[in-house]
Amino acid sequence: METQTKNETLISKEQLLAHWQGHRALTRRVIEAFPEKDLFNFSIGGMRTFAVMAAELLAIAGPGVKGLATDEWKELDEKDPSQGSKAKLLEFWDKTTAEIDEFFPQISEGRLQETMLAFGQYEDKGYCTLLYFIDNEIHHRGQGYVYLRALGIAPPNFWER
Amino acid sequence: METQTKNETLISKEQLLAHWQGHRALTRRVIEAFPEKDLFNFSIGGMRTFAVMAAELLAIAGPGVKGLATDEWKELDEKDPSQGSKAKLLEFWDKTTAEIDEFFPQISEGRLQETMLAFGQYEDKGYCTLLYFIDNEIHHRGQGYVYLRALGIAPPNFWER
Repeated sequence: METQTKNETLISKEQLLAHWQGHRALTRRVIEAFPEKDLFNFSIGGMRTFAVMAAELLAIAGPGVKGLATDEWKELDEKDPSQGSKAKLLEFWDKTTAEIDEFFPQISEGRLQETMLAFGQYEDKGYCTLLYFIDNEIHHRGQGYVYLRALGIAPPNFWER
Repeated sequence: METQTKNETLISKEQLLAHWQGHRALTRRVIEAFPEKDLFNFSIGGMRTFAVMAAELLAIAGPGVKGLATDEWKELDEKDPSQGSKAKLLEFWDKTTAEIDEFFPQISEGRLQETMLAFGQYEDKGYCTLLYFIDNEIHHRGQGYVYLRALGIAPPNFWER
C-alpha cells in the first residue's frame, strides 16, 4: 500500500459529483438533440445507435454508483429500457440522475482508493472505476456529436455543463 | 472559500498524471491507426480532420500543463505543426508527453483548487481546467473512433491505456 505523505485535496467529493452530473446533463441535451427516429436508427460505420450507447451509459451509471456506495454489484444489463421512445429514455436518464445524487454521497471515505470488482467482472481501484464511468460517457457522447453533425444537426456546446 | 472538513484523497496527484498519460497513450494509438492521407483529409459532417483535432489537443496539453505549473499562460495556438506528416505529429505528441511528465509534478499544492485564467481566457478552478484538458481529448478521440469505423478500420480498445 502506498504511503500518502500529504493529503492534498485535488478535487473534493462534491466537486467530483458535480463534474459527473455536469457531463450527464450535457449527454441529456445530446439525446434531446436527436430526432427520435435517428436516435434509434442512425449510425455510422456499423457502430451502435446513440440510443443503444445511452442504454449502456444508463446500465453503468445507476448500478455503478450503487456498487461504489454499497459494494453490491450485479451483472451489467445493457438492454435498452426505452422501447423506441426518446421521452422514455430521458425519463430513465433523470431517474439515474436522482440515483446518483442519492448514492454518491454514501461512497465511504477511502473507498475510491480500494480495489474492487465492478459489476463482478472489472477489477480496479474505485477512482479508476468511477473515472471509467465518466470517461466512457464522454467517449460515446463524442461519437453522438459526429452522428448529429452527419445528420446536419448542431450539437450542444461541449463546454456547457 | 469553502471549508474542507476532511482531506480524503479521492485520487492522488501521481494517479491523476498516470490517468492523463494513459488517455494520451490511447490517443496516440488512434493517430497511428489512421492512414496518413485520411488523418489529414478525412472528416464527417463538415467537422475537422483528426489531425486538426490532434493539433488542438497538442496546443492545449503542453502549454496547459506549463500554465498549471507556472501560471504563465500564452494564447492558444492551434496551428497544426505536423505539415501533413503523421510521423511528425507523433513526434510532437511524444514531446508533449515528456513536457507533461516534467511539469505536472511542479503543480503546487492547492493549485488545482485555485481559480485561474487558463490561456489568458478561460476562468475556472485548476481541477476544472485540468479535467477539461482530459475530457476534451476523450471527446475528440471518440470522434476519431467514428472516423476510423467509417473508414473500415477497427480502433484500439477504449479500455486499454
